[in-house]
Amino acid sequence: MTKDTSNQMWGGRFAAGPDAIMEAINASIGYDQRMAAQDIEGSRAHAAMLAKTGILTDSDAEAIREGLLTVLSEIESGNFEFSAALEDIHMNVEARLKDLIGEPAGRLHTGRSRNDQVATDFKLWVRDQIDAAIDGIAALIRAFVAQAEVGADWVMPGFTHLQTAQPVTWGHHMMAYVEMLGRDLTRFQDARARMNESPLGAAALAGTSFPIDRAMTAEALGFDRPAANSLDAVADRDFALEFLSASSICAMHLSRFAEELVIWSSAQFRFVTLSDRFSTGSSIMPQKKNPDAAELIRAKIGRIFGANTALLMVMKGLPLTYSKDMQEDKEQVFDAADNLMLALAAMEGMVKDMTANRESLEAAAGSGFSTATDLADWLVRALNMPFRDAHHVTGTLVALAESRGCDLSDLTLEDMKGVHEAITAHVFDVLGVHNSVASRLSYGGTAPQRVREQIARWKEAL
Amino acid sequence: MTKDTSNQMWGGRFAAGPDAIMEAINASIGYDQRMAAQDIEGSRAHAAMLAKTGILTDSDAEAIREGLLTVLSEIESGNFEFSAALEDIHMNVEARLKDLIGEPAGRLHTGRSRNDQVATDFKLWVRDQIDAAIDGIAALIRAFVAQAEVGADWVMPGFTHLQTAQPVTWGHHMMAYVEMLGRDLTRFQDARARMNESPLGAAALAGTSFPIDRAMTAEALGFDRPAANSLDAVADRDFALEFLSASSICAMHLSRFAEELVIWSSAQFRFVTLSDRFSTGSSIMPQKKNPDAAELIRAKIGRIFGANTALLMVMKGLPLTYSKDMQEDKEQVFDAADNLMLALAAMEGMVKDMTANRESLEAAAGSGFSTATDLADWLVRALNMPFRDAHHVTGTLVALAESRGCDLSDLTLEDMKGVHEAITAHVFDVLGVHNSVASRLSYGGTAPQRVREQIARWKEAL
Amino acid sequence: MTKDTSNQMWGGRFAAGPDAIMEAINASIGYDQRMAAQDIEGSRAHAAMLAKTGILTDSDAEAIREGLLTVLSEIESGNFEFSAALEDIHMNVEARLKDLIGEPAGRLHTGRSRNDQVATDFKLWVRDQIDAAIDGIAALIRAFVAQAEVGADWVMPGFTHLQTAQPVTWGHHMMAYVEMLGRDLTRFQDARARMNESPLGAAALAGTSFPIDRAMTAEALGFDRPAANSLDAVADRDFALEFLSASSICAMHLSRFAEELVIWSSAQFRFVTLSDRFSTGSSIMPQKKNPDAAELIRAKIGRIFGANTALLMVMKGLPLTYSKDMQEDKEQVFDAADNLMLALAAMEGMVKDMTANRESLEAAAGSGFSTATDLADWLVRALNMPFRDAHHVTGTLVALAESRGCDLSDLTLEDMKGVHEAITAHVFDVLGVHNSVASRLSYGGTAPQRVREQIARWKEAL
Amino acid sequence: MTKDTSNQMWGGRFAAGPDAIMEAINASIGYDQRMAAQDIEGSRAHAAMLAKTGILTDSDAEAIREGLLTVLSEIESGNFEFSAALEDIHMNVEARLKDLIGEPAGRLHTGRSRNDQVATDFKLWVRDQIDAAIDGIAALIRAFVAQAEVGADWVMPGFTHLQTAQPVTWGHHMMAYVEMLGRDLTRFQDARARMNESPLGAAALAGTSFPIDRAMTAEALGFDRPAANSLDAVADRDFALEFLSASSICAMHLSRFAEELVIWSSAQFRFVTLSDRFSTGSSIMPQKKNPDAAELIRAKIGRIFGANTALLMVMKGLPLTYSKDMQEDKEQVFDAADNLMLALAAMEGMVKDMTANRESLEAAAGSGFSTATDLADWLVRALNMPFRDAHHVTGTLVALAESRGCDLSDLTLEDMKGVHEAITAHVFDVLGVHNSVASRLSYGGTAPQRVREQIARWKEAL
Repeated sequence: MTKDTSNQMWGGRFAAGPDAIMEAINASIGYDQRMAAQDIEGSRAHAAMLAKTGILTDSDAEAIREGLLTVLSEIESGNFEFSAALEDIHMNVEARLKDLIGEPAGRLHTGRSRNDQVATDFKLWVRDQIDAAIDGIAALIRAFVAQAEVGADWVMPGFTHLQTAQPVTWGHHMMAYVEMLGRDLTRFQDARARMNESPLGAAALAGTSFPIDRAMTAEALGFDRPAANSLDAVADRDFALEFLSASSICAMHLSRFAEELVIWSSAQFRFVTLSDRFSTGSSIMPQKKNPDAAELIRAKIGRIFGANTALLMVMKGLPLTYSKDMQEDKEQVFDAADNLMLALAAMEGMVKDMTANRESLEAAAGSGFSTATDLADWLVRALNMPFRDAHHVTGTLVALAESRGCDLSDLTLEDMKGVHEAITAHVFDVLGVHNSVASRLSYGGTAPQRVREQIARWKEAL
Repeated sequence: MTKDTSNQMWGGRFAAGPDAIMEAINASIGYDQRMAAQDIEGSRAHAAMLAKTGILTDSDAEAIREGLLTVLSEIESGNFEFSAALEDIHMNVEARLKDLIGEPAGRLHTGRSRNDQVATDFKLWVRDQIDAAIDGIAALIRAFVAQAEVGADWVMPGFTHLQTAQPVTWGHHMMAYVEMLGRDLTRFQDARARMNESPLGAAALAGTSFPIDRAMTAEALGFDRPAANSLDAVADRDFALEFLSASSICAMHLSRFAEELVIWSSAQFRFVTLSDRFSTGSSIMPQKKNPDAAELIRAKIGRIFGANTALLMVMKGLPLTYSKDMQEDKEQVFDAADNLMLALAAMEGMVKDMTANRESLEAAAGSGFSTATDLADWLVRALNMPFRDAHHVTGTLVALAESRGCDLSDLTLEDMKGVHEAITAHVFDVLGVHNSVASRLSYGGTAPQRVREQIARWKEAL
Repeated sequence: MTKDTSNQMWGGRFAAGPDAIMEAINASIGYDQRMAAQDIEGSRAHAAMLAKTGILTDSDAEAIREGLLTVLSEIESGNFEFSAALEDIHMNVEARLKDLIGEPAGRLHTGRSRNDQVATDFKLWVRDQIDAAIDGIAALIRAFVAQAEVGADWVMPGFTHLQTAQPVTWGHHMMAYVEMLGRDLTRFQDARARMNESPLGAAALAGTSFPIDRAMTAEALGFDRPAANSLDAVADRDFALEFLSASSICAMHLSRFAEELVIWSSAQFRFVTLSDRFSTGSSIMPQKKNPDAAELIRAKIGRIFGANTALLMVMKGLPLTYSKDMQEDKEQVFDAADNLMLALAAMEGMVKDMTANRESLEAAAGSGFSTATDLADWLVRALNMPFRDAHHVTGTLVALAESRGCDLSDLTLEDMKGVHEAITAHVFDVLGVHNSVASRLSYGGTAPQRVREQIARWKEAL
Repeated sequence: MTKDTSNQMWGGRFAAGPDAIMEAINASIGYDQRMAAQDIEGSRAHAAMLAKTGILTDSDAEAIREGLLTVLSEIESGNFEFSAALEDIHMNVEARLKDLIGEPAGRLHTGRSRNDQVATDFKLWVRDQIDAAIDGIAALIRAFVAQAEVGADWVMPGFTHLQTAQPVTWGHHMMAYVEMLGRDLTRFQDARARMNESPLGAAALAGTSFPIDRAMTAEALGFDRPAANSLDAVADRDFALEFLSASSICAMHLSRFAEELVIWSSAQFRFVTLSDRFSTGSSIMPQKKNPDAAELIRAKIGRIFGANTALLMVMKGLPLTYSKDMQEDKEQVFDAADNLMLALAAMEGMVKDMTANRESLEAAAGSGFSTATDLADWLVRALNMPFRDAHHVTGTLVALAESRGCDLSDLTLEDMKGVHEAITAHVFDVLGVHNSVASRLSYGGTAPQRVREQIARWKEAL
């Protein structure tokens, strides 16, 4: 809406006078109204503290706190008239409060300023988004764990360079994403702990001479403590940048699985079938399923990291303390947060709904001499060959099988002995894909037994 | 609006079912309605061509073309009901057309598809923005030229490292930005020429078997020619990326002058006074003028380059032809274009309104032995010293003046001769700041005469 | 080498004193020695001009010009001792010149400074890289054209969303990249034309009082003209940024084909076979071919756009004119240029060497009811159905074929008539993949005839 | 060196054949030799574990471990001949080991592969850099704390928008950076804890059938535990991205103080004097000090965030597990780490060496009616005015003082009473800058008492 308006105004040529241009570039009410609840929460905490410390009378504070609730309900019900002339959410709320309760409204701003107020509002908003991200990631982890449980022992190709390297299990592949998302989880938790200091009471930049109690407002707002330096408190946007950095890495993880879904949905792979709900069709090819949601999720990293780029560039080289440049912080974070939450939810839905095509996976797992490594390892283990020599023997056997157009397990023992005398019939035990995956019992390995242990750990942890 | 809605829906936890999530991530009507005029322009050209080539009857084509005008007027007047279920602007327009004219509406899509349609719409939109950028840049150039004319011979410090290096003229400094903006101008012009090929008729990706005339629609839409390869035509977003690259470089230029304005407006510099319209005050310090608009412009590079980053990251590694990832192109370009236009307009307004403080500039220009280079050059020219030796002598004289607490021109001829015997009284001709700038007559130099020539060239060119 | 050294010095903790730290952060000779040839070319042109304008004697100028040739040959033969104490290439060359020719060396710097000198050197270097990029792109275009010629009429699936949409021709797909690269070509040409103005003679920032002839040096160095404003001439790095922007878009194109090669090389696709020279194997799976070069090329966009990001961020908000921040420009551009050239060369090699698997392509092209669009178009054309109705009928027929487990062309005329009475036997003419591609004769379409015309145009253009 | 060579090879046109191009794009030994120590440390731990678990004989393991020490000493002494044909550091070390000890060398690779080996090496290298960053940040914190101690009660202007807002203390300003750097410290610590899981033994991707003990190698290498999923272990580069993200935010903090140093060093501000060691001069203006180191530090954010951009773009959309794209990770991290360490060290040196100009700071602090807020607060506190009314009265008084050309404290009580009757002589107590800062006693405020408490907390913490 804001954008459309600004487009109409500035799109062609700038008929509007300088005042309109200044309003367009300066006013933030078009987007910072999203922080209305946080703004009112902060002001209510501030008013309670001003009363407790005797700076305000109890009755003034009560009037303010009640009035703010009224403003909030007006905003939430859609009955609030936002004014661009009042520039931002803070002034809009305060002006309406004055309408409602009169003179005491003018006392609310004692011992604070717009600089610490906006920092507080924005921190509360970002903290809510961190919590939402943590919830969204946990839900997606559960979806991957559920997929892993169903197919803990299904075999599929393990790829390097999108070439089959060794057979792995479906459950193992799903759990790889659980590990990535698990790191995302702690990354957001760490960011939350670090940012959870209250700027409120830093005032314009220098603190205040009123005997305020910053610890009290900090506690009321769920902060761990007040920020220790008032200049830093109003100049700091680390919390927004760290949210964007963590979101970018998380979006990168999503982009990897999204890419796999696009490839796996192709007619050539057919590893998974996406549900109708997360794909789109063609009016003339009813069998066709375009993995639209996967593609859109894959793209979200661009937008989220674009926001990271934008805000870091804005903050580069800003002298202390507040500069108006910093007003550009919100739209970037709002957009990145919206899109991260949407991508997590869509990915959760897709993972829940998707069906792995067990037969296709198993067929693909066995092709391409995928158990050659198992053969080489057997030569090392059973015949005590040095690793590099075992590789050489294996290569010769694979070349032989390839020339015959058969698989390794189709070679006879004589074929094998022709290449290396000491090979015994036990070698055939390691050549099937199920044998292969079952043998990889090292910690973290692809054996179903290990995968089930990983699943159990995560189910307990969540 | 879209953002707020999506926030309400996805902010906390995702109560909404998968269908709502899919709609939220998939539908583009929330933003691509900005291309309504371009969509209708393209469809009208397509219909006219279908009639001309006999694919449609004249009466069907006429009904379509009239119906589309009706749709356009409904949209422009705000009476159009956009439907998210219809996903995008193309389907919204077509559905309404069917309401209005019935069966012939179904024939409009002959010989084209959504893929070439969206490419065409978006190209037309970007081309309009390139034209708007060119206009905005030209207007800003005129504002700088006007400033340069007023102060073609005013002296100010020429800085390197924000340290005074040599005196220069105000006009010269203003004209430096004109050169930068002049490159921006041709950069946008080149981008326009390169992108001005019509995708229309590429159809889904392979072209069509209908005997369409792509040259005719290309001409009707102001394109120079039809795009030569239909796969490329629907897979290409170079035009958007090049617009964002050119916008980023332009925004960088704006950020440099914005930084200068912030520094120059400080109490310590006082080189310029911004108008009230482009600064904000303090309710308690009426003399204070915060350079808000300059700071906001300085920040715009972040957002614009963030969009560039986002879209390039989206396009990385996409197989041909169309992938849904590419739907992320529009919001980035819309936002970058809006903000570039706004920044250009605000900068134009500030430059027009600002007042250079001639006395402060001249006083600063003369301090710090800023004519030491002139002295060194005189030694080379008049006494035929090698450049490096002249530097040494000059350094000794500056050190002498500094120890005396005086300026170079306050040294006596005897002082000078004490350092180097051959110095004559002619040396004093080069030591004043006005003499200094007047002497730099090399092409492109800071001499008022050269600056006036630069101004004249630009006034003729524009 | 520089990096290793600096790592040893700074890696653990900084035992080194401040002087060593300052040298490490300040000296550029470790990398700017790559501009030695450009530096000497610029100095030789400057000396010739100083003689022509009478500022230097002919004999001094000749001594300088000859001495510089000696320095160049020392550097090219590897016999030059670079000194970090002399900081940069300019001082290293000048100091050596003084060793060689004595006093006249000190006169070379008359009428210029390090600021315009470094701008000139760097522009010349970037211009060389633009020329190299243009050559590399042209060579790659020729490789794609050669592939297109061989398979102008081979059919393959045309993909959207990595799902088969319609059959297209191999030649058409190859030529799509030719179009992209063709835009890269003109983008670099435009950048070259825009940047081809000489900074030399801008001196420190203000121009000079010596009667230099900037047009003469500009011409000698292949510039179109001298830069028109000396402040801008030393403060400008647009040419580097535009090179990086154009390189980023070009690298994006390469990343798309690289992605296709990785997917096409998978066991599931087998669309192409890469040559041994551009893939790596496995010591134990001799049949395996990892598309390493394609993956490395796909990754280069990161590095090249990382350089773009870096330099734009550096330039953000720099006041005029030269700031030391700008010294960070070179390493970014050097690295991006090296990697673009390498990626172009490697891609050219891969494209030349690769073999399309014609049978796999054709088999894939026919699967998935890829000619459904042809059927729908036939209904429109032959039966005059509205497009949207034709889609509905086609969808019903595809669903019928799918339920039968057969292809569209395997349905009988009776089957067809059962869905829509008016269908005739002519419909079968459009259902084969060869018929399909041959019918798409619209300009830029996939028909072999059109592809051959595109090829012919490019062969003439190159 | 690598770069120069590749430039010579690829710079002009690619005379080199495809093999040379492939080697140039594929080989990593030119840079990954920086991980030699980590590679050997990892291999030694692996060999010890292979012996302990009975996979290797003790004598083979001992021969390997001793041989590796010999290789390390050869590399450290510069006597190692690196071979590009052997591609990377892993193969170079192994080949040399084979020269030295023969057959047992071939057994070292049992139960691991290059994929887990390179992940281990790189993690160890990044972990070392995190430790170095933590040390460098702590040292810089100490330098800021020392500056804060010296000037805990010196007054200076507190800026918003680079306009004087209120007086603050020098110590307070210094401590603001301590807070920022304190967050950087924990950000790196969190990253270290998260990444400290051992990939070793993940083998190619699936784990291994050898009875290896991953916990043992993890412990030997200082990891907290083995990575829990072998697919993730070889596909993960989160640790590198998180290092780059944390480095980018830290570099942003440095860029802000660097900007302040550049501005504060200008002739117009003269707030600080940098030491000669961290500035450069002019041969002809001996008094001039260019803040080169500050400018170079300011620029480092570009390079570091450029590396972040590059690697995130590389990782976008990569299917599991290892793809060759990921080889692009190292150069980015190496370069970013080198430059972060260098920037931290240079900033530490500058902060230690710099001298604040106490008189200039105090003079600037008092100008511009900087105590207007104190006056307004007094009106609220002493006269119980609502905040907004107090602002109005203050504004009138400032306007009066401005019209008189005097400061607020120069107004008479009568002047004051003329504007508001109730004002008393006590108002003058709050108008001096020292009174102003002393009164801001709220937690985190600028009062010297609070600043000294902040200092004490940090001195205890470090």
